[in-house]
Amino acid sequence: MNDEQYPSQLLQNAVDEFSKLPGIGRKTALRLVLNMLRRDKEDVSRFANSVLRLRNEVRYCSVCHNISDTETCQICSNPSRDGSIICVVETVKDVMSVENTQQYRGLYHVLGGVISPMDGIGPNDLEIESLVKRVSEGGINEVILALSPTMEGDTTNFFLFKKLSPLDVKITTIARGVAVGDELQYADEVTLGRSIMNRVDFADSFRMDR
Amino acid sequence: MNDEQYPSQLLQNAVDEFSKLPGIGRKTALRLVLNMLRRDKEDVSRFANSVLRLRNEVRYCSVCHNISDTETCQICSNPSRDGSIICVVETVKDVMSVENTQQYRGLYHVLGGVISPMDGIGPNDLEIESLVKRVSEGGINEVILALSPTMEGDTTNFFLFKKLSPLDVKITTIARGVAVGDELQYADEVTLGRSIMNRVDFADSFRMDR
Repeated sequence: MNDEQYPSQLLQNAVDEFSKLPGIGRKTALRLVLNMLRRDKEDVSRFANSVLRLRNEVRYCSVCHNISDTETCQICSNPSRDGSIICVVETVKDVMSVENTQQYRGLYHVLGGVISPMDGIGPNDLEIESLVKRVSEGGINEVILALSPTMEGDTTNFFLFKKLSPLDVKITTIARGVAVGDELQYADEVTLGRSIMNRVDFADSFRMDR
Repeated sequence: MNDEQYPSQLLQNAVDEFSKLPGIGRKTALRLVLNMLRRDKEDVSRFANSVLRLRNEVRYCSVCHNISDTETCQICSNPSRDGSIICVVETVKDVMSVENTQQYRGLYHVLGGVISPMDGIGPNDLEIESLVKRVSEGGINEVILALSPTMEGDTTNFFLFKKLSPLDVKITTIARGVAVGDELQYADEVTLGRSIMNRVDFADSFRMDR
């Protein structure tokens, strides 16, 4: 892998650092680094500073733990959002994905991952206590569990269900099924099976504002 | 493109900067930036510094204009290389590509691009004068032109040929032909045509040390 000869140690260091990024191999890293070399110094320092500032100055919403520039995030502090529903997701990226659907007007709770004993991640490493506290303080009618359909996601779902079910709150999970636009023959059996079990009333299936 | 909502200005700035990199779209940029957020502060500053140092401290060999940490690069200052042959390439990356073949023991000359009136790049923007000077100082028997087989590359080849041919030096160009391992049916006509025109003696085709 690393037997390629670089003409300069500075160049090699930069390629080493870029190739630590997920999905970036050494060839792509070299291409990106050589692109940096062709750019203005000001432009390159703008790039480097954007990364440094993000990492050093990033803040998380004290309520939902989403990334935020302020104490409470734009979503939590928006009075037009429905404060009685919390959608529980794994990551900041998931919040952005749900937001981009423009179908959800409630609040979020970012766990920061899922329970994964293999990776040494237990319930205490996630923002679970703060979720239970939010719900037990009242005013929440529904918690939507929107975690990955993996073994770890399901484990976390059951853990959250056990913690939340004593509280007076409706617990739901997002529908799993054949993706819109997908043909049945290409869906895997588990997905197709769940999508038949969880079939919905045809008239309801067109309503977006449920 | 940019209608996605980012929960933080810092995050958006970093995504903006990453998506300026060639071949990196906004989705990939977000993935890379979120990866940065999960890493140690020290690790992130090592990343940012590697880019800043490369851009601010980079030096170029005073002879061949390849990237170098020293006044003359490792190749130009290596006494075991054949100083009578110069391979003319466009970029630093091309030097690395030729070096990786381990078939070439001569020196290089990095032009820094090709003549491209459309992009406003004329002969004076490239390291052409310094190449002519190197050759006219004597001791060079052969100049190998290894530029891209594009219209701009061909234009530059002819320009260099005109400049160098009055000097007492052999001017060659790398063989164009069907790539090793490629089937004939997949080669384009121009490549196949050139590879028939420039056919070589069968016995010679196995010799690597020509």
